[in-house]
Amino acid sequence: MSSPLIHKFEGELRKISTLNSIIGLLSWDQEICLPAKGRKLRSEQIALLTGSVHQLKTSPEFVELVADLLEMPGLSEEDQANVRETWRHLKRSIKIPKELVEETSAATSAAFHAWREAREKKQFEIFGPFLEKLVSLKKQEVNLIGFDGHLYNGLLEEYEPGMDVDSLDLAFEVLKDKLSPIIKTISQRPVIDDSFMRGDFPEELQLQTGREYLSQMGYSWEAGRMDKAPHPFCIGFNPHDVRVTYEVDSGNISRFIWAILHEGGHALYEQGLNVEKWYLPVGSAGTMSLHESQSRLWENMVGRGKEFWSHNFPKLKQTFPGPLRSISTEMFYSACNKVQPGLIRIHADELTYHFHILIRYEIEKELFAGSVSVGDLPALWNRSYRDYLGLEVDDDGVGVLQDIHWSHGAFGYFPTYSLGSFYAAQFFDAAERAIPDLSDQIKNGNLATLREWLRIHIHQWGHRYSTEELCERVTGQKLNSRFFMEYITKKYGEIYALN
Amino acid sequence: MSSPLIHKFEGELRKISTLNSIIGLLSWDQEICLPAKGRKLRSEQIALLTGSVHQLKTSPEFVELVADLLEMPGLSEEDQANVRETWRHLKRSIKIPKELVEETSAATSAAFHAWREAREKKQFEIFGPFLEKLVSLKKQEVNLIGFDGHLYNGLLEEYEPGMDVDSLDLAFEVLKDKLSPIIKTISQRPVIDDSFMRGDFPEELQLQTGREYLSQMGYSWEAGRMDKAPHPFCIGFNPHDVRVTYEVDSGNISRFIWAILHEGGHALYEQGLNVEKWYLPVGSAGTMSLHESQSRLWENMVGRGKEFWSHNFPKLKQTFPGPLRSISTEMFYSACNKVQPGLIRIHADELTYHFHILIRYEIEKELFAGSVSVGDLPALWNRSYRDYLGLEVDDDGVGVLQDIHWSHGAFGYFPTYSLGSFYAAQFFDAAERAIPDLSDQIKNGNLATLREWLRIHIHQWGHRYSTEELCERVTGQKLNSRFFMEYITKKYGEIYALN
Repeated sequence: MSSPLIHKFEGELRKISTLNSIIGLLSWDQEICLPAKGRKLRSEQIALLTGSVHQLKTSPEFVELVADLLEMPGLSEEDQANVRETWRHLKRSIKIPKELVEETSAATSAAFHAWREAREKKQFEIFGPFLEKLVSLKKQEVNLIGFDGHLYNGLLEEYEPGMDVDSLDLAFEVLKDKLSPIIKTISQRPVIDDSFMRGDFPEELQLQTGREYLSQMGYSWEAGRMDKAPHPFCIGFNPHDVRVTYEVDSGNISRFIWAILHEGGHALYEQGLNVEKWYLPVGSAGTMSLHESQSRLWENMVGRGKEFWSHNFPKLKQTFPGPLRSISTEMFYSACNKVQPGLIRIHADELTYHFHILIRYEIEKELFAGSVSVGDLPALWNRSYRDYLGLEVDDDGVGVLQDIHWSHGAFGYFPTYSLGSFYAAQFFDAAERAIPDLSDQIKNGNLATLREWLRIHIHQWGHRYSTEELCERVTGQKLNSRFFMEYITKKYGEIYALN
Repeated sequence: MSSPLIHKFEGELRKISTLNSIIGLLSWDQEICLPAKGRKLRSEQIALLTGSVHQLKTSPEFVELVADLLEMPGLSEEDQANVRETWRHLKRSIKIPKELVEETSAATSAAFHAWREAREKKQFEIFGPFLEKLVSLKKQEVNLIGFDGHLYNGLLEEYEPGMDVDSLDLAFEVLKDKLSPIIKTISQRPVIDDSFMRGDFPEELQLQTGREYLSQMGYSWEAGRMDKAPHPFCIGFNPHDVRVTYEVDSGNISRFIWAILHEGGHALYEQGLNVEKWYLPVGSAGTMSLHESQSRLWENMVGRGKEFWSHNFPKLKQTFPGPLRSISTEMFYSACNKVQPGLIRIHADELTYHFHILIRYEIEKELFAGSVSVGDLPALWNRSYRDYLGLEVDDDGVGVLQDIHWSHGAFGYFPTYSLGSFYAAQFFDAAERAIPDLSDQIKNGNLATLREWLRIHIHQWGHRYSTEELCERVTGQKLNSRFFMEYITKKYGEIYALN
């Protein structure tokens, strides 16, 4: 059945999604194309459309329509999912007064500029007062919206509905217990040589390689493109226009390859959504952790896997005969999985990465619980890096100021990165069971079966199910970090001869 | 004074202009970046914003506001200009019923696809019925809007307000009388050798040259960029974001150079508008012919001038030593001004170009007067090319189907190209009188004085004055094609030793 109310509801969502897709393009253009002087007009364009979206979403007629549909019997499961997801966003939006939205928007904009300056000058004090303001505004917001248990749960709800502090605490506790000894043992093993990752890797040849890998993955160039940007990202306006970006350093191949595989994973998800329903939640990507599971699966399980390089390394060696001349597939495989604690999250290996997240998660929790103040953050940060990773932080620029997230007011976002890794391992395990010769297929350069499996079991559903529910449908059980631990133990056990 | 009504009026215009600037970006991206499959979403995005603009512009409150301001005493001259120009568009829009707008939009879309197919297959009959429909819709539109004298005046009004059939007839009559004998004499002179324009001109070196010329002209790269596109164009979202595009053929330098100088002329105009008022008519470009005067002035008066090449040819020769090795500045100057009748308008020289326009103008007039029918066009076209240019048209693809304009429903547009040349000559004459050593300056590679003169006398005014009025203010007299004729007579008299 398709009631006139559903018809009206979908019509409004289509307008909202179309406007959001335009805002997306304006942002993409700002990163890739916009001339320096064009920023002022760009802000004005984005503000106008953002205002229109807000107006459409919070108009009393639309809110009433969605509320009515929530109560309506006899809706199809798909319609119910669309109504449920729309309501989830809506009920947050309508609780926040316009003044707070505007104040937060202004404070975020100011905080971002302060953060940039602070990071450049390595002076946390420049950013401190702005961060304090954002924390206070965010607390107000969460209090208005409401939350169960910890206030931090209200923050998580924005990025990862259904996730809460208790579950995260448990997951990180397990992680800490099991990863710490592995990392410690590895630190006593001989250091893996990855010096050949630095050398003469001409930009155009790296790009050609990246394009080839994206093609192997099944990224559709008819529905996307790849551009240079100040930082790698993926943005999908709808499944027929999904763009990835890259950073490239002609003196270091490792910066480019795994970033493009990562963004490619995001892009396959976006391209695999149902294009007929692109403007509805069931045709849109799910939560952050689900998105991140797709990028990490391709970056790590596939892209740092023995099988992938068994197929691709000989060609890579031909492409870069200078630096890779005397390197074997095994040496390359080990090098791209080298474990080494470092100060910078985005350059971390698969293991120590999660301590970067844990540190941020613990700090955010304390900050919002009020047990530490903004002024304490640099010291707390540095102590955490000493305790968890055994590192001394040189300055705040490579310490507490390294990430952009807080300057955007994004608190509660970091944990989705670790969750993404856990989901990735659990999904990949399910794929391996469903496709018994998956390993051989990847070894033969055939990534299509895996991609199709992901499309059918994950991508095509969009936001029809919650991430937990989807996880159960796909893997037969709830999220369980043991899949990640097993993956890590097996892989690094071999690489570092841990057993 | 700044009344609250003016404040409200400017606020509405700012929204409308912001939306239009976004539509502009969506179109630019469609030409430059959009993946093949992204077209459907793009149409939907453009349609949504176009609808919003139409709604804002024709809302009864806004129409009433503008009507009130039209009658309001004591407005500043600038405010008056803004109200006048807004009303000029508005009074057209409100007279056309929504149904006709939608029917025209659908008919245009269908006609464009038919035209593309027809041109490819060289079969006018495929396009004929669609063209017939567009002509009939356009007649309805002009009848609803109203016009003085000829119905064709109503068509002209859309692109070149103030221009009419009587003035155009006179201008073209003079042109015909004076240009025909010159072209005839030239055809009896030895043919100029321009074969060296074809050869090995590597793409990257052409682009470097183009960027250098744009920089010489004073194009600001902080407020613009240059991209490859299926056809060269310039689009300005506001003076701080003005983008040019190019086509490049590594086997032929002539396709690139003058096109980039042409688009550069458009771009200087857009960058020279008043950025504080970008959303108002006084900060927006004037009529089509005025815009075209700027592109032609830089393409022809400067870019096909002896002085420009006296400065730039030595460097060009160094850049392309292969094809240009044995070529002198004089030979190059002659070659880029070679006169030779051809079938294709966009490849025509400065003289025969206007016969291409005359032919289209005469055909459009007859079509809208009803003295010829759509079915007669191919024969009429071919006869005109025989009569005016002495050429046999091989097929409709290089004949009546060559231009995109009619498929867009743009009738009455072509004459603005010739008017642009006339204005260009008249403006350049004024500039030469105002800057006595202009010729020497260009010879020394200094284009700044000319650009500043144009900015002060033309660009900065936007649409504050009508083009005729601006012409009088800048040159001391109304548009007069004698400036163009003098320019032509002098230049080609020398090149072809006509005296």
